[in-house]
Amino acid sequence: MRQALTSIAVAAAALLASAQQNVFQAPESLQSPVVNADGTVTFNLYAPAASEVVVNGDWEADGGRCPMTSDGQGLWTATTAALPGDMYTYRFSIDGITTIDPANPYCCRDVASVFSIFFTPGEQSDYYQVHPVPHGTVSAVYYHSDAANADRRLMVYTPAGYEDSDRAYPVLYLLHGSGGDETAWLSLGCAARILDNLIARQQAEPMIVVMPNSVMPTTAAAGESTDNLDFRPRLTNQIPGAYKNGLFETAFPEIVTYIDTHYRTRADKHSRAVAGLSMGGFHSLFISANYPEMFDYVGLFSAGVDFSNVDTTIPAYTDLDTKLAAQARAGVALYFIACGTADFLYPLNRQLATRLTAAGLHTTWLDTPRGHLWTNWRRHLMTFAPLLFK
Amino acid sequence: MRQALTSIAVAAAALLASAQQNVFQAPESLQSPVVNADGTVTFNLYAPAASEVVVNGDWEADGGRCPMTSDGQGLWTATTAALPGDMYTYRFSIDGITTIDPANPYCCRDVASVFSIFFTPGEQSDYYQVHPVPHGTVSAVYYHSDAANADRRLMVYTPAGYEDSDRAYPVLYLLHGSGGDETAWLSLGCAARILDNLIARQQAEPMIVVMPNSVMPTTAAAGESTDNLDFRPRLTNQIPGAYKNGLFETAFPEIVTYIDTHYRTRADKHSRAVAGLSMGGFHSLFISANYPEMFDYVGLFSAGVDFSNVDTTIPAYTDLDTKLAAQARAGVALYFIACGTADFLYPLNRQLATRLTAAGLHTTWLDTPRGHLWTNWRRHLMTFAPLLFK
Repeated sequence: MRQALTSIAVAAAALLASAQQNVFQAPESLQSPVVNADGTVTFNLYAPAASEVVVNGDWEADGGRCPMTSDGQGLWTATTAALPGDMYTYRFSIDGITTIDPANPYCCRDVASVFSIFFTPGEQSDYYQVHPVPHGTVSAVYYHSDAANADRRLMVYTPAGYEDSDRAYPVLYLLHGSGGDETAWLSLGCAARILDNLIARQQAEPMIVVMPNSVMPTTAAAGESTDNLDFRPRLTNQIPGAYKNGLFETAFPEIVTYIDTHYRTRADKHSRAVAGLSMGGFHSLFISANYPEMFDYVGLFSAGVDFSNVDTTIPAYTDLDTKLAAQARAGVALYFIACGTADFLYPLNRQLATRLTAAGLHTTWLDTPRGHLWTNWRRHLMTFAPLLFK
Repeated sequence: MRQALTSIAVAAAALLASAQQNVFQAPESLQSPVVNADGTVTFNLYAPAASEVVVNGDWEADGGRCPMTSDGQGLWTATTAALPGDMYTYRFSIDGITTIDPANPYCCRDVASVFSIFFTPGEQSDYYQVHPVPHGTVSAVYYHSDAANADRRLMVYTPAGYEDSDRAYPVLYLLHGSGGDETAWLSLGCAARILDNLIARQQAEPMIVVMPNSVMPTTAAAGESTDNLDFRPRLTNQIPGAYKNGLFETAFPEIVTYIDTHYRTRADKHSRAVAGLSMGGFHSLFISANYPEMFDYVGLFSAGVDFSNVDTTIPAYTDLDTKLAAQARAGVALYFIACGTADFLYPLNRQLATRLTAAGLHTTWLDTPRGHLWTNWRRHLMTFAPLLFK
């Protein structure tokens, strides 16, 4: 390898130690993780002084826990059971220090933690990969919110071809959960890739996908707001004035108006969907119920529909059954509810489905395995998006 | 804090250990880093089993090396000297394992390594912060390259107000270095924030900034190309067919044509600038010399102008002095060269300036302290952008 270096890189490498000139890092010879042909995954770590190293991941096999063993020379390794095709997050625990895999350049923040990531091949996870198909554009855009008295950031996916046509497109509003922000559906949810691949395979209609930030007291994702790095990422219910106060739901038409006036949308109910995971499912329920002429498609993914702590004197939350009945009379093309059967919210979602049915809303139910996890929300989106705008 | 949790969060926390349901992470009580009022920075790490912990960063004081000391109870701390206002990257070395700060949710990839980041306050770094000013839009866009026979990704910054006017804007093409990709100027370079703040303070003209990917055999940044996570990030000179072969320079008009046909640009030489850091400076030199009617503004930031390994039979690289003389005759409004005085490329840039002068090109020179570092490239951009399109 040394022979392949140019004179500049050699000079830079020589200078690096003394002057921190960040031009050169030697490629790691140790690869980790290695996705094996049989679906198992091997982790490697050089930690000569460590006494105990464990991999903790979000897969189901062995509870996502994978103790590493040392070769006595400082190399620690572990191999998982065969894992279903998916995107996975993991961290190492090295003598009690929890951190990313030093050999893996790919990582992703979830709430306040940074996780290493990898993909295993499979029919579902193939949609999470970049393929040589036409790609949509992803933009970080600011809309003005009168309700928040601030410019607030949202992410917009416009499908391939948007820039080269005069066509108007339907819009899916896709909402994050209590631990997320406007970036979560793109990073952990693979939303742009799922849409690129569904559309390229003609399994979904070309559509615009709008991913707002639902945490009204902030202006953007952690690190991108005016609090900059002083912001400590945390769940929305831990942020004062952010949770179940109706502000986001009531102000939602601001976002729809911004999108309809700045993008070539089909600005009618039949061409609008709203869906969200966990807290975003709670939001989708109330937004669509409060604005029954706005959305023809509703998707609740592992929705956080615990009403025990909801203040029903807040206008957005009053008279839910009455609003649902009005929504049923106004008509809904698809009311989709998906939940992992091991999700702690599963019983509450079943109760909600009964309540929706009683109000006259016909619901389409999707059971998926496992719990309150991104593996489910990606799958829910992959199932929901092809049903839209038919 | 426990009293503030909702029933959902409590249920989720209870389930987390057994079911990996990623809904809840307790906030870390340990904060690291802490930027102190006197400009010093304190790092904290709980590592009860560690024998030696060192912070390695890209600041100048103490060579960026900061050994941590233990309180005997497992808490390791270190405090730097007072640091100038800037963005800094760092990692911990814990008994020989190099990794990010577990308590810091903010990190950034540079080539194949992930670094924790922080900002210290100062006149310059104030431009790297998100302020309550109008924000531009940042988009990840694909253009078709006939030369590469692929759709390739570039990042486009459109200034605040672009979407709400019919105005046409000038364009700065801003090129990454050998370790970078189309995302580097945004993440490590803070380019969108610098432009937002310069424009809001009326110190720079509103402009579009286009950040292409210069690594022609790839389609996009590491992890965003069709190689997905199989791609091992490395320097461009380590990627076959990517380095100093003239492909990127010769094909550059593809990008200009894409931008001029898809954005409201002022599509003339007087409204175009090209600039880049390190390898991107080399690119800017040759692109502007080969297309003398395309750019009125040229910026070389710590340019990688080592010609010893350049094949001058490649059309993009033949007859440089003749091309420079033609460029001088065609006219250049600004030929800007900036370099750190401790940069290993400083002498080569001084030589180039002499050569440019001999060709009849008047150059504007900026010396900055220190070496081949992002601190300089951010400062070079902050100095260059206000000089454009006057």
